[in-house]
Amino acid sequence: MKSRPDDTTPGWIEQEPEPFSFRSIFKWGAKDRFKHPSTGFLNIIKQELGLSQADLKSVAHTGNERVGDHQKPGLRPEEIQTFETIVGKDNLFLDTYSRLKYTTGKSMEEIYALRHQTIGQICDVVLHPRNKQDIKRIVSFCHEKKIPVHVYGGGSSVTLGLRCLKGGVTLVMSTHMNRRVAFNETNQTITVEPGMMGPDYEALLNRAPEELGAENRYTGGHFPQSFEFSSVGGWVAALGSGQASSYYGDACDLVISQEYVTPTGSFKTHDFPATATGPKLNDIMKGSEGCFGVLVGVTLKIFPFYPEAANPFAFMFPDLQSGIRAARQISQAGYGMPSVLRLSDPEETDVAMKMYGLEGGLPDRFMRLKGMNPGSRCLLMGQTEGEKAFSDTVFRQIKKTGKSCQGLYLTGYPMKKWQKGRFSDPYMRDALNDFGILIDTLEASVTWEDLSNLHSQVRAYIKGHTHTICMTHASHFYAQGTNLYFIFITRMDDPDRFIRFQRGIIEKILENKGSLSHHHGVGKMMGPYMEAHLGTVQMDVLRAIKRHFDPHGIMNPGGLGL
Amino acid sequence: MKSRPDDTTPGWIEQEPEPFSFRSIFKWGAKDRFKHPSTGFLNIIKQELGLSQADLKSVAHTGNERVGDHQKPGLRPEEIQTFETIVGKDNLFLDTYSRLKYTTGKSMEEIYALRHQTIGQICDVVLHPRNKQDIKRIVSFCHEKKIPVHVYGGGSSVTLGLRCLKGGVTLVMSTHMNRRVAFNETNQTITVEPGMMGPDYEALLNRAPEELGAENRYTGGHFPQSFEFSSVGGWVAALGSGQASSYYGDACDLVISQEYVTPTGSFKTHDFPATATGPKLNDIMKGSEGCFGVLVGVTLKIFPFYPEAANPFAFMFPDLQSGIRAARQISQAGYGMPSVLRLSDPEETDVAMKMYGLEGGLPDRFMRLKGMNPGSRCLLMGQTEGEKAFSDTVFRQIKKTGKSCQGLYLTGYPMKKWQKGRFSDPYMRDALNDFGILIDTLEASVTWEDLSNLHSQVRAYIKGHTHTICMTHASHFYAQGTNLYFIFITRMDDPDRFIRFQRGIIEKILENKGSLSHHHGVGKMMGPYMEAHLGTVQMDVLRAIKRHFDPHGIMNPGGLGL
Repeated sequence: MKSRPDDTTPGWIEQEPEPFSFRSIFKWGAKDRFKHPSTGFLNIIKQELGLSQADLKSVAHTGNERVGDHQKPGLRPEEIQTFETIVGKDNLFLDTYSRLKYTTGKSMEEIYALRHQTIGQICDVVLHPRNKQDIKRIVSFCHEKKIPVHVYGGGSSVTLGLRCLKGGVTLVMSTHMNRRVAFNETNQTITVEPGMMGPDYEALLNRAPEELGAENRYTGGHFPQSFEFSSVGGWVAALGSGQASSYYGDACDLVISQEYVTPTGSFKTHDFPATATGPKLNDIMKGSEGCFGVLVGVTLKIFPFYPEAANPFAFMFPDLQSGIRAARQISQAGYGMPSVLRLSDPEETDVAMKMYGLEGGLPDRFMRLKGMNPGSRCLLMGQTEGEKAFSDTVFRQIKKTGKSCQGLYLTGYPMKKWQKGRFSDPYMRDALNDFGILIDTLEASVTWEDLSNLHSQVRAYIKGHTHTICMTHASHFYAQGTNLYFIFITRMDDPDRFIRFQRGIIEKILENKGSLSHHHGVGKMMGPYMEAHLGTVQMDVLRAIKRHFDPHGIMNPGGLGL
Repeated sequence: MKSRPDDTTPGWIEQEPEPFSFRSIFKWGAKDRFKHPSTGFLNIIKQELGLSQADLKSVAHTGNERVGDHQKPGLRPEEIQTFETIVGKDNLFLDTYSRLKYTTGKSMEEIYALRHQTIGQICDVVLHPRNKQDIKRIVSFCHEKKIPVHVYGGGSSVTLGLRCLKGGVTLVMSTHMNRRVAFNETNQTITVEPGMMGPDYEALLNRAPEELGAENRYTGGHFPQSFEFSSVGGWVAALGSGQASSYYGDACDLVISQEYVTPTGSFKTHDFPATATGPKLNDIMKGSEGCFGVLVGVTLKIFPFYPEAANPFAFMFPDLQSGIRAARQISQAGYGMPSVLRLSDPEETDVAMKMYGLEGGLPDRFMRLKGMNPGSRCLLMGQTEGEKAFSDTVFRQIKKTGKSCQGLYLTGYPMKKWQKGRFSDPYMRDALNDFGILIDTLEASVTWEDLSNLHSQVRAYIKGHTHTICMTHASHFYAQGTNLYFIFITRMDDPDRFIRFQRGIIEKILENKGSLSHHHGVGKMMGPYMEAHLGTVQMDVLRAIKRHFDPHGIMNPGGLGL
C-alpha cells in the first residue's frame, strides 16, 4: 500500500482498493474517489481525540486482502439449478466475494468487520433478476422451499438492512431492474423499477424534455446523503428522507402507487391522488424493508425543476435555543417551507466554521463582537426552492424570522460550501477509519417539546466517552418537530466495545423520547428495539401483516425485528 | 303540517319535526333551521325535471309520524344488565327511537326509508360511554360474547356507515367523550376525544389564547360540508376532506397520533413528526371506520389562524377544458396551494350564475361578449390562506395562471356568496325531498389524465335518466389529480329504483377510473365494491388486519366490506 507519509498530514490512502478485496466492498462510493479531512478538521480531531502526529502515521487493517472463496453455499444443488433456470447462468453468483458484497451495507459495524477480514452471516446465492417475472418465479420457489429472500438496492444501508441471518438468496435490483416504466407529465408522475439509482433518476427528470419528450424539466426532490449510491426502491423500502425533504417531503410522501411480489401474490395499488377507501394500502407497504414482499415497481410524484429560483441562506445565532426558536418559527409560520434547513449545535458549528474557512476571519470577528462565540453559537442554513415567487417569498420571510430571533445573516456562502461537499463527505469516513478513527452517526425524530432534552442527554452520553467528538444537527423539519442527527468521532480499537457504545446511544435516544429512526430505517440493527419502542400491541400488527404476506417467514428474516 | 301554499312557491315546511318522529331523525342539522332553494334554482329544477307548479303543492311522506317502540332488542337481559353496570342507567337506551336514530346516517337511501316509516337493521342498545375505561370494558365484554360494536360520531355518514347489519351495540361518542385531552402549542398539536364536534373543535382553536392560554390563535383547517354536525373522530375514522384541504390537507394528513380500543388490546401510536420505523402504524388505523377498534383519542396538527390574510378569488373560463388546464397549473406549479379551489362544470356553473344572482346582469353580458356562454362556461373559484406573505403570493400567481388560461377574473364575489351558504346547503335537501325531488351526491378521486373522461362518462350516464340535473365540481386538488363530486337531482318515487340508479353511477365511476371514494368513506354502501375495486390480494391485507384486531368479527360488521 503506497502512502504519502510526511510530518503534517497522515498518509491518506488514495489508491483504488485491490480487486475482490474486503476494502473494495466497504469503501464508500466510487472506487477512484477519495476525500480526506481538511487540515482544520483534522486538527480538531487530533485535539479532541488526544492524538499525536505519531498516531496518524500507520495504516492498520486496510482490508485490502482478497476475499477467499471459502464459504460453501448452504443450498442444495437442485435449488441452485432452479435459480439458474430462472435468471440464467450469467445472473447467478455463488462465490464468497459476491455473497459477502451483497450482504454488506455501510454501517460502521460492517466496515469494522470487513477491515478485520471477518465474514459473518452472508447469503448463499446472489441473483440479478431481469424482470418482474423472474422475481415472481424466485419468490414462489423460495416460498415453496422456505428459502430466505433479501433485496439489495444501492447497498447504502447503515442499519444492517442487508445482513442475511439465515442465508438464502439476495436479489440485486440495480443490475437489470433499473428501467423507466412510464412517465406521465399530465399527472406529474414517473414509474420506475426499484433498481434505478438516484443520479440516473434525477438526471432523467432534469432532462425530461430531451429524454422523455416532456414540456418541462422536473426534479424528484429526493437527495439523501447517500444519493449517488442509493436506489429509488431503497428510498421507499426503508423510508428515507432527502436533504431537501422539508419542502419536497420524505420518501413516503412521494409515493403514489407501488407493486410488490409477495409469497401470497402480487400486490399493486392504484395511482389515485387521494382516497377514502379504508386504511391506505400504499402506506402498509412503504417502509416494509423487504419483509412483506419485493418492490418491483413504484410510481412517484415529480416536481417542476426551477434551479434558478433557489435562494441559499445562513444565519448565526448566539446559542442553540435561539437557533431552535428560529427553526421552529420557520417550520410553523405557514409561509412555506425551505427545501433544505439545517441547524447545527455549537460543537458542529465550531467545526463548520473551520471547515468552511470562516474561523478567524472578518465575519468571525464580527460575530464575536455581537456576542456569538465559539462553544455556544449555532449555524442555521438552508435554501428555498420551488417556483420563483414562492421561493422568493419564503426566502424573504425566513430572513425576517432569522433576524427577529437574534440571527446574524451570513449570506448564502456557508450553504454553498456545504452543497459542494454534501455527497462526498461519506468518503472521509474511510480516510479516518484507516487510522483507527471511528466516525458514525445515529439519528432520531423528536417533537419540538422534547428536542432540547434529547439533544443534551444523548450528547452527554456520547461525550461521557472521553476524547469523543459529537456534532449534532437537525436537518428535516416539520411543524410538529424535527430530527436530530448525531455524528460521533472517536478512537476505538475493539469492535465489541464500539458496538456496546453505539447501542448505548440508541438506548439513550429511546429513553429521551427520540424515535428509533427518522430516516435510516430499521434493519437488523434497530430491529431488536422495535417491540419495546412501538409497544407489543403495535408490533403485533406488523407481525400479523408479516404472517399474512409471508407465512413461512422467508422475506428478509429479522428485518424490522420481524 | 302547516305549509304556505301559493301560486309561485311550494309550501316549504318550516316547522320543527315532531318529537320522536322519523323526520326528527333524518332532518339535516338543527331542528329549527331550514333552507329552501332560491326562486332561480327552483325554476331550473322545475324546468329540468319537467315539473309544473301543481307538482310542487303537496307534501307527501313528511316522516313526521312518531317512531313506535315496537322493536325488542335482541340481547339477553343479563347482557343488557352488564352494559348498564358499565355505563350507568342514564347512558343506556333500549327504545326503538334511540336505536333507529343512532343507526341512521344521512344517505338518500336512509332518508327515503325513514320518510316511509321503514325501520331496517338497527342496533339493540345505544350506549353513551363516559370515558376510555367504559369503552375498554364494553369492547372486552362484546368480544367475549360476540356482540357487534358500532360507533356513532356526528351521524353525517352518507355511505350507510352507521347501519348495524347484525344488531349489537352502538356507542355514541359525542355525549361525553367530547373533551380536550391536551393542547401543545410548542408542537402545534391538540389531543381530543373523538366525540368533539367540528364547531367546538374549531372554536377552541380560534380562541386558544382565551380558552387555552396560548400565545396565538389556531385553526384545525378541516371544514367538510358536514362540519357543523361532524365529529373529529369521524373525520379520522372515515378519512374526510375539508373544503380547505388543498392547503391544510385531508383528515389523514392531519393526524399525528391515535389511540384505539380493540378486541385484542389498546393500540396507541407515538407523536413523532416523522419516522422510518417500518410501515407507519398510524396509517394502518386511519380510515378503519370502526372495523379494527374504537378511536378513543387523537392528536392532530393545528395551524396558525390568519383570517385576515384570506384572499377569495373567482374566474370564468370559456369551457371546461380551459378551466381544468388552469386548475391543473395551479396545482402543479409549486407556488403553494390555495385552501379552497372549486371548478364547476358548465351545468353547475349555470346554476351558480343563477344562485349568485349573476345571470342576466352586467358581468353576464360581458362574459357573453367574451364568448363565455351558458352551457359551456365554467366557474373556478377559491381562496388563498395561511401567513399573509404566502397567501398574497399564491393569490397573485393564481391570478396570473387564471388569465394565461383564458380566465376572466370575477373578483372574490362568487366565492363570498358560496362561503355564506356552504354549511347550510344540506338543509335544502329536506325541502326538495318534501316534494319528492331527490338530491344526492357521489364522488371519486381521479388523476388529471382520467378526469375529463370520468366526468363525461358519468355525466352521460346520469343525464341518460331523463329529467335529471347533474352538477359536477372538482373541489380537492393535488399535483397528481383531483376529485369529482357529482350532484344529481331528479324525481323518483320508487326507493328501489333510486338505489339501482345510484348504484349504477357508482359502477360507472369505477369503470372510468374513478376511485370508489375520495372523502365520503366506505360504509356498507361502498363496502360491497371494495374487493373488486382494490383487488383481492389488496383486500386480503385489510382482512388480515381485521382478523388480527377482531378475530370474532364484532367491530362494525360489514364496514369497509369486511
